[in-house]
Amino acid sequence: MAGDGKRGLQLRSLIKKSGELEISLLDVPTPEPSADEVVVRVEATPINPSDIGLLFGAADMSTAKASGSKDAPVVTAQVPEKAMRAMAGRLDESMPVGNEGAGVVIKTGSSDAAKALMGKTVAMIGGAMYSQFRTIRAGDCLVLPEDATPADGASCFVNPLTSLGMVETMRREGHKALVHTAAASNLGQMLNKICLKDGIALVNIVRSGEQAEILRKIGAKHVVDSTAPTFIEDLTAALIETGATIAFDAIGGGKLAGQILAGMEVAANKTATAYSRYGSNVHKQVYIYGMLDPGPTEINRTFGFAWSIGGWLLFPFLMKIGATDAARLRARVIAELKTTFASHYTQVLSLQEALQLPHIAGYGRRATGEKYLINPNKT
Amino acid sequence: MAGDGKRGLQLRSLIKKSGELEISLLDVPTPEPSADEVVVRVEATPINPSDIGLLFGAADMSTAKASGSKDAPVVTAQVPEKAMRAMAGRLDESMPVGNEGAGVVIKTGSSDAAKALMGKTVAMIGGAMYSQFRTIRAGDCLVLPEDATPADGASCFVNPLTSLGMVETMRREGHKALVHTAAASNLGQMLNKICLKDGIALVNIVRSGEQAEILRKIGAKHVVDSTAPTFIEDLTAALIETGATIAFDAIGGGKLAGQILAGMEVAANKTATAYSRYGSNVHKQVYIYGMLDPGPTEINRTFGFAWSIGGWLLFPFLMKIGATDAARLRARVIAELKTTFASHYTQVLSLQEALQLPHIAGYGRRATGEKYLINPNKT
Repeated sequence: MAGDGKRGLQLRSLIKKSGELEISLLDVPTPEPSADEVVVRVEATPINPSDIGLLFGAADMSTAKASGSKDAPVVTAQVPEKAMRAMAGRLDESMPVGNEGAGVVIKTGSSDAAKALMGKTVAMIGGAMYSQFRTIRAGDCLVLPEDATPADGASCFVNPLTSLGMVETMRREGHKALVHTAAASNLGQMLNKICLKDGIALVNIVRSGEQAEILRKIGAKHVVDSTAPTFIEDLTAALIETGATIAFDAIGGGKLAGQILAGMEVAANKTATAYSRYGSNVHKQVYIYGMLDPGPTEINRTFGFAWSIGGWLLFPFLMKIGATDAARLRARVIAELKTTFASHYTQVLSLQEALQLPHIAGYGRRATGEKYLINPNKT
Repeated sequence: MAGDGKRGLQLRSLIKKSGELEISLLDVPTPEPSADEVVVRVEATPINPSDIGLLFGAADMSTAKASGSKDAPVVTAQVPEKAMRAMAGRLDESMPVGNEGAGVVIKTGSSDAAKALMGKTVAMIGGAMYSQFRTIRAGDCLVLPEDATPADGASCFVNPLTSLGMVETMRREGHKALVHTAAASNLGQMLNKICLKDGIALVNIVRSGEQAEILRKIGAKHVVDSTAPTFIEDLTAALIETGATIAFDAIGGGKLAGQILAGMEVAANKTATAYSRYGSNVHKQVYIYGMLDPGPTEINRTFGFAWSIGGWLLFPFLMKIGATDAARLRARVIAELKTTFASHYTQVLSLQEALQLPHIAGYGRRATGEKYLINPNKT
């Protein structure tokens, strides 16, 4: 580990044509900053579900094996043959990982904008954050408030902007209340705080009594447990009460998306005046934004024709709303960094620890409410 | 049967709280036309899949029994208990059937617009067409060309406007080519004629070699058979060649909608320059507009996040585009009634014949390429 930032370790994920995943740490030179760039010593970078997608690819992590040394660990695992087609675009390409992170600016380019960041604690988005040093455009850095640590700001893009993006999408598409699944997640807790603050009704769907409790403790009003025998009735009652007609689903696979649409249809028909064999005219929307269950989505179409299920991603959404509105959302994140958008971490790992099999099993579970942070400069 | 039109037979579908479907013919008085209305002697009304949905409801037609007399036949069948919930809106309500039809105006209200229709052959939409006489607003009648028979105009709303609506949706949502399933249907043949005429590439998905042949004979260029062992390869090749990123699916159930999205994604990635674990940025759309397979839709999400599957219905679409554009579509139907929008019928039935079990088995199959017409005044 080079303290001067000229070289540093970087986590890489490689899927070989042979079908083997290899995760390792490379010692790479830090690119010299151009005039508009800065070098950041990364001190906190979260393991988001979206990072895990790139990190493991389609590999079956139950086949994972550890090799290498303590300082230079290597993890290998097998990608099932039928999953290799989806990996075609990344074969034999050693890929850096880590969507977002935060750290301290230790070197800058010659421009005033870059120089102004010297010594500041900044948050960043742009990939390759599982690195000790990251050269990045000054304009892509968000300066954190004076009293904020890198850990405070490590997760200030993906989850805060995703949860704000859900509320923004709800408003733009003419809905008045929201449904969220895997709702006790870090993201789900943020969404509850936003909705409580903004007076928006939110139906939280969780998968255990413990998760329900987590949300009730932070003030969530509508929490339904999909493992309860009364789930469909509970969900329908909450949909009737809130009038929610848009849902964001982190799970993807299974029957849940269809069950939500069916419940929304029952709620819509409570106010219908005439029978229509085509179902209600009320448009019902589910956006799938995650892959907690990568299995097939099974939709029992018992809810007419006024419905849609589709993918939703933060970056295309931000592109769509444009720079001004995206900046408005970012400003709110900074203003509420230690309240609405505070993240809590289960564990802080070094880069080497992130490649230990017990830790991989831990964050690989993507368990709701558990969130891991990497500090690439942890010693 | 009253030749003066004061009374007439009307087909009714009733689902009782007990779970029994009853289809029968009622002798009902013809409502007197108000100033703006006319009375039409219905001579041709098609049995569309959408009519069958109302006619049979969720009944299991393998349990159908005939009773009553030759002139007043009655058909009963059982609705499976688990399907009764979806029927809640129509229980114990005797419902007239028949979305569209055509006939001759035999009586009019006092307004000039109504009087101008006396003796004309008109096409109509608005339900209750499986009736000998239909009182309807003059403004809801479309006057057919002099040389057109009621049979020529009987199907001039649903299928012609639906196929035109698909092309219109494709253009409005920024796609350049189309995919259609159950593509050898009457509707599918119309869609081929429109696309050939307008120079739009159309990928036809059929379920047999015979259906492929029907389409090739009318000039279809891209026909793929979902029962062929090479289906996925054939579909993908056609999607690459055409660049189609929107599909209209009449089937609904099963894996087809997901397979289409997966093929579109492979096609989109042919031109991608960098790997994205979120899939391509190309938005891929499937609209489900039918229920040929009422079973669950199973979607293997192997195509990133830029996708949507949703319901599509003609009437909400026409509402959305507004009166001017809807009128433009209707004008094209009339202009091309005997060419692009000509329908061919397998059989013409009287109302009594429509209630005979062998005929019910015939049109109940909803077999691609077979289309039945009812002439309520056939003697």
